[in-house]
Amino acid sequence: MNYRFSSKVDTFTSSAVREILKLTQRNNIISFAGGLPAEEHFPVAAIGEAFQRVLAAGNKALQYGLTEGYTPLRESICEWMGRKGIKVTPEDMLLTTGSQQAIDLLTRIFIDAGDVILVEKPTYLSALQVFRSYGARIVSVDADEDGMDAADLAAKLKQYRPKLVYVIPTFSNPTGKAWSVERRKAVLKLCRENDALILEDDPYGELKFGDASVAYPSIFSLDEHPNGSGVVYTSTFSKTVAPALRTGWVMGDPEIIRHMTRVKQAADLHSSSLDQQTLYQLMKHFDLDGHIEFVRGEYEARMRQMADLLKEQQWPGVKWNEPKGGMFFWLELPESVDTAELMKTAVDFGVAFVPGVSFFADDAAKKNRLRLNFTHNDFEGTIEGFKRLNRAMETVLVK
Amino acid sequence: MNYRFSSKVDTFTSSAVREILKLTQRNNIISFAGGLPAEEHFPVAAIGEAFQRVLAAGNKALQYGLTEGYTPLRESICEWMGRKGIKVTPEDMLLTTGSQQAIDLLTRIFIDAGDVILVEKPTYLSALQVFRSYGARIVSVDADEDGMDAADLAAKLKQYRPKLVYVIPTFSNPTGKAWSVERRKAVLKLCRENDALILEDDPYGELKFGDASVAYPSIFSLDEHPNGSGVVYTSTFSKTVAPALRTGWVMGDPEIIRHMTRVKQAADLHSSSLDQQTLYQLMKHFDLDGHIEFVRGEYEARMRQMADLLKEQQWPGVKWNEPKGGMFFWLELPESVDTAELMKTAVDFGVAFVPGVSFFADDAAKKNRLRLNFTHNDFEGTIEGFKRLNRAMETVLVK
Repeated sequence: MNYRFSSKVDTFTSSAVREILKLTQRNNIISFAGGLPAEEHFPVAAIGEAFQRVLAAGNKALQYGLTEGYTPLRESICEWMGRKGIKVTPEDMLLTTGSQQAIDLLTRIFIDAGDVILVEKPTYLSALQVFRSYGARIVSVDADEDGMDAADLAAKLKQYRPKLVYVIPTFSNPTGKAWSVERRKAVLKLCRENDALILEDDPYGELKFGDASVAYPSIFSLDEHPNGSGVVYTSTFSKTVAPALRTGWVMGDPEIIRHMTRVKQAADLHSSSLDQQTLYQLMKHFDLDGHIEFVRGEYEARMRQMADLLKEQQWPGVKWNEPKGGMFFWLELPESVDTAELMKTAVDFGVAFVPGVSFFADDAAKKNRLRLNFTHNDFEGTIEGFKRLNRAMETVLVK
Repeated sequence: MNYRFSSKVDTFTSSAVREILKLTQRNNIISFAGGLPAEEHFPVAAIGEAFQRVLAAGNKALQYGLTEGYTPLRESICEWMGRKGIKVTPEDMLLTTGSQQAIDLLTRIFIDAGDVILVEKPTYLSALQVFRSYGARIVSVDADEDGMDAADLAAKLKQYRPKLVYVIPTFSNPTGKAWSVERRKAVLKLCRENDALILEDDPYGELKFGDASVAYPSIFSLDEHPNGSGVVYTSTFSKTVAPALRTGWVMGDPEIIRHMTRVKQAADLHSSSLDQQTLYQLMKHFDLDGHIEFVRGEYEARMRQMADLLKEQQWPGVKWNEPKGGMFFWLELPESVDTAELMKTAVDFGVAFVPGVSFFADDAAKKNRLRLNFTHNDFEGTIEGFKRLNRAMETVLVK
């Protein structure tokens, strides 16, 4: 049998992180690779109670649901976001299988092969996977600690006429930085002027460290919305509750949400409504904000531990910035080091990270970067992981 | 803001059934429209127990999972299918968000705009939605009570060189018929000879009525497999356990499964692993086959009730065949009746069905067909629904 695959099939690449995740599941490896939350902090008992409430409400809970998602959960999310200053109604919202699906559906309704998408340099590797799978031309925009570079963005908006601009402005993956408010406003203004829709991916916004009074308003909330919004916003329960429930949401202009809903209907009818109903009961009967506050504190402590360990190593020529939130350290090694090669050595020593090259959209990829997750391992695991990582580093760094 | 959607966005249509489902959720309507299982037979207590077992096994249950799906569930499905004579290993299987997602992913890896897909006449409307969304050219093949017409298929394989042939050979949606073994073999042979991959959609195979000794072997099992298989097979727990868990599976040649897994990784990372783990515990500790046997008996009784009611009405010029399994009656009305118009009247009288036109791929759509679901309503509901349906019928049928 000769299989006649689509011409795009070769663009469906497997992500480095997913492959590493597989590897680490099989071996006794300490992994700083995946963006995994701390398992010991999952609200297991509360999820169990929420699930029993769902089943107690009657058999209808197990029937087919709406493509848009379970209405009471959409209402709860709207109310919750309202308390954070983001006004949105359930009609402007679609529930998805994680925010990954929101990225996929939005790309599917906007991109024809050859259309341009602008991204940060560097950016989330699995978003790049999606964009490539639809034949998009991905162009990366320079960035500094305050966010996307406005001058470079302006030039690339004119040059490429992109349909979409994909950003993670709050505790970005992989760099952990937070854009300044001024930069958010500048990017929004430029994109609106050029009819380039912003896809704001915000999985980490709740995981903020340091001074609680410092606010990072979403770009979505800085725009008038939802009608005619220049921003589509997506977030998820994967980092605040648990990933296994695979529940994300996406909000934006009703016309966009309507098109996304239609294509989702074809893609999978709807996401798990059992998970959605469980999350609704959880939001109703469990102190989610208190839980997030707790997790945030734990993650900040883990981040500080890793920051201290990084300093202690005194690895020559290795630089990083302290993340303002989220899940990752982003390390720059000396130019001579190829972190994809280093990774092989590291796995031999029993430790894993993600080589930086996967986070770059185009040929200008930096080979001397790597990403470390600090949320998944406990203190002990991180100390042991750093011992192993240090052994790997010693093979490439001259002290 | 001027949204620059993809050129395909107009092909993302909403399905008639989903729209009707919305309607029936809002009003006091008796619906024969959706392919909904009977809610009162969902194994709620067993699902609750299975879920508690999942949580009791530890926090890791709530972590990210593999794109391929929860390995123990894939193993259990393989074992279960093995007992039905279908040999498959977990490596040749991917878990999906219902079998709907399997249809979407397979289409995505095979179809470029303009490629041809052959389908039965009539066929599952939401598969048509998927195919259209990828710009496929859909050509329908004639069929009789024994299945797809081999001569017409042979001619169309030569004429169109289709990449895919989509079929529901066992208790088809919408017609409820079961293909003969001879026809299955003939279609398989023809498709293999022409390098046209068969997508065998089998959501209803377990819901078999009548003589238990009559077997309907899947086309997948009639082929050598899985390496080089000419068939990709998909099924789901939606009709045998419950739809809200949104868990389906797809099996086929490892190369095809590998490509589907990669594109699923981009589409949503993985489906709800909480649902998958719950189903694993359910298969382990609950008599699933016994439950299916029970549901099958209930559905057969409901089918017989509706068959009797149909006879009693003595609607002039209305024809149907008794389904051999599954969930649907497929009615042919006099040529003069447009069932889309009749539907409006029916809704006014408080009853719903699906107009047949949605199940036809091309211009040769028959306007005088309609689909009735017999599994969702209980005896009382069905009697009342038929009273209302009769009132609607009286407006178009001359007694």
